[in-house]
Amino acid sequence: MQAEIIAIGSELLTPFRQDTNSLYLTEHLNQLGVDVIFKTIVGDSRERLTNVASTALARADVIIFIGGLGPTEDDLTREAVADALGLPLKRDPELVAALERRFAERGYKLTPNNLQQADVIAGATVLPNPNGSAVGLWVGGKYEGREKIILLLPGPPAELKAMFEQQCLERLRSKLPRKAIATRVLKITGLGESQCDARVAPIYKTFIDVDTTILAGAGEIQLHMKSQKATTAEAQQRVDQLVELIEEELGDLVFSDNGDSLEQIVGYYLQMRGITLAAAESCTGGLLAERLTSLSGSSRYFVGGAVVYSNHLKTDFADVPAHMLEKHGAVSKEVAAALAEGIRYRCEATLGIGITGVAGPTGGSPEKPVGLVYHALASEQGTEVIERKFPGDRKRVRWFATQQALDMVRRKLM
Amino acid sequence: MQAEIIAIGSELLTPFRQDTNSLYLTEHLNQLGVDVIFKTIVGDSRERLTNVASTALARADVIIFIGGLGPTEDDLTREAVADALGLPLKRDPELVAALERRFAERGYKLTPNNLQQADVIAGATVLPNPNGSAVGLWVGGKYEGREKIILLLPGPPAELKAMFEQQCLERLRSKLPRKAIATRVLKITGLGESQCDARVAPIYKTFIDVDTTILAGAGEIQLHMKSQKATTAEAQQRVDQLVELIEEELGDLVFSDNGDSLEQIVGYYLQMRGITLAAAESCTGGLLAERLTSLSGSSRYFVGGAVVYSNHLKTDFADVPAHMLEKHGAVSKEVAAALAEGIRYRCEATLGIGITGVAGPTGGSPEKPVGLVYHALASEQGTEVIERKFPGDRKRVRWFATQQALDMVRRKLM
Repeated sequence: MQAEIIAIGSELLTPFRQDTNSLYLTEHLNQLGVDVIFKTIVGDSRERLTNVASTALARADVIIFIGGLGPTEDDLTREAVADALGLPLKRDPELVAALERRFAERGYKLTPNNLQQADVIAGATVLPNPNGSAVGLWVGGKYEGREKIILLLPGPPAELKAMFEQQCLERLRSKLPRKAIATRVLKITGLGESQCDARVAPIYKTFIDVDTTILAGAGEIQLHMKSQKATTAEAQQRVDQLVELIEEELGDLVFSDNGDSLEQIVGYYLQMRGITLAAAESCTGGLLAERLTSLSGSSRYFVGGAVVYSNHLKTDFADVPAHMLEKHGAVSKEVAAALAEGIRYRCEATLGIGITGVAGPTGGSPEKPVGLVYHALASEQGTEVIERKFPGDRKRVRWFATQQALDMVRRKLM
Repeated sequence: MQAEIIAIGSELLTPFRQDTNSLYLTEHLNQLGVDVIFKTIVGDSRERLTNVASTALARADVIIFIGGLGPTEDDLTREAVADALGLPLKRDPELVAALERRFAERGYKLTPNNLQQADVIAGATVLPNPNGSAVGLWVGGKYEGREKIILLLPGPPAELKAMFEQQCLERLRSKLPRKAIATRVLKITGLGESQCDARVAPIYKTFIDVDTTILAGAGEIQLHMKSQKATTAEAQQRVDQLVELIEEELGDLVFSDNGDSLEQIVGYYLQMRGITLAAAESCTGGLLAERLTSLSGSSRYFVGGAVVYSNHLKTDFADVPAHMLEKHGAVSKEVAAALAEGIRYRCEATLGIGITGVAGPTGGSPEKPVGLVYHALASEQGTEVIERKFPGDRKRVRWFATQQALDMVRRKLM
């Protein structure tokens, strides 16, 4: 089965806004065994939208329209899809009554425009919207001799997700041919994309019945594996077999096999051991603390730390000796270690992290170029320092540095 | 003039990857007076890609294909566009020689697949790629009686941007009807979207020759204005007139009229005054420091600060009295003020910020619900505290809190 996702709205054709709903829908469709073969983005023009709908009807089995269901003149999805299907729109008295109630409750005046939200494509099922005024529509049936499923969903992600999960997912599953699909994701850090592929390609290439995709992001590689078999158990077994072989090959370079982020993994380990972490950050300027505290419950293992941009603060908050800063410079192995040790002591944490480096784009020198970062991890057993030279711009260098620091904690606790 | 952007690659039809090049291209096309009327995303299938190309040729004047120019069997853009145009592909001996040189230099073996990168649509101009092996193509000329401009650009953003800016932008400008377009962006904080629209709609609606768009993000509203006239000066004058009236209406709620972010504005003010800032963050966990230090040169005005997740650190790093924490709780007006004053003193900064609140999703209580945040700004003149109750999830609450804190600094320095 093949799907097309159509996102509607002139704002999606500006430089400022992007459709993200399709990523969410694609994930669910893939799990039902439906491939997305086209995504189309079209503005609020009835003619263009009707043409796009007709094209989609000719090439896809499942067609999902996102947006354009509101009460304004620009909301034309109902009309255009009805045109493309050659079906009339009918005003639904129950929906009219519901709109009247909704507006009366809020003390608003119902305008004729608002009433278009009660228009339903003939034969369609109305999908109530608990989070907004725009209802969705499910249109089934044959089109030019082929069975089609057509969904009209609202654009706001919270409305779309609730409607899709609660009212479409099970119904889609029951209408689609039963598929037994299993997926797994491995996340890897500390390895480049081509190095990683060179090591794992010889393995996954022998699993021709498992679809494997490598995705490289900043400081992280993801391996996505998908298998489709007669039964889910069989599909699961094949991806599991592949995962096992890849984990054997890559060892502790794999940090997650269930989709967790590096900060989540580090959080689990710290919580499991009942120990705490503190961080003194110079060039990452709080990004490491921000990542760690982005997780609810992180106060159980992350006590806090200091953003020690100035030398004075390196001394005041993390006890880095002034003479050390003078002798070795703020970006040095010695200062990284002192930051980690100092912040560990000052915060009374089990582990302390120190990061110092040149994030750029300015401030580099031949000896200490942009991208040079020292990462230190202090514990009862002593202090480990790792020097890295990261490529890319300020944002990338800072991200890479936090990946490296988190990975040091992970490896320490593994 | 109307454009269609076609992004090619099966990975863009997965839940994991999204085309972002089109946002960049749209911005430039808009400035040339070209509207983007469709965006299409299609996988690595020659048949589908050819159909998409034919459809685009029938409905747009400028068609930009992104990706699918590499050396693998999945790279089919050249073939498909040639098919759609009914033109042959010719192997370019100069490109073959260049590929041979490139591979010899790196000590790689040239495979027959690699040579397809030397195939050129008959009559097209080759666009060299200084950042990669895939050259781009510019195809001009009439198609079914109408003048078309067709660009084939590589997918990696750095390659696409360099090629577009250096080799396409001026040539496009010279081929397109001369347009005189002026744009402005106003950024606003401290106001909801509907409140903002209620105040500015009566103004911008009288400027029917200026296209105004309101975009609402987390803690920030953007007003985009665009005018097209006989001359650039005339267009500029109209958007400037509108901007002036809106700035008059909104006063200091407008924080930027040139696209700068709130942290950039705060940075400018601090630098202009030659003063410094420090921050003690509890619930924002380093996000404020991260935003401030994301800008190169921020060490000139941001000395650093502390992430004081635990009460012990609130006392140790920001001198918050233990009895105050006991009496009022960590999330209180008093503690916010003490954090701001303490961190200002400890960091020897001109201004000190303190943030404490309940980011959620857990940790809320009837008296101190999720979303409650206290923001304090300490200076020589005293300490100001603002209490806010933010909606949304942890990520949103934390973002809103940093917007509020930055805005307090902006207003202080204005």
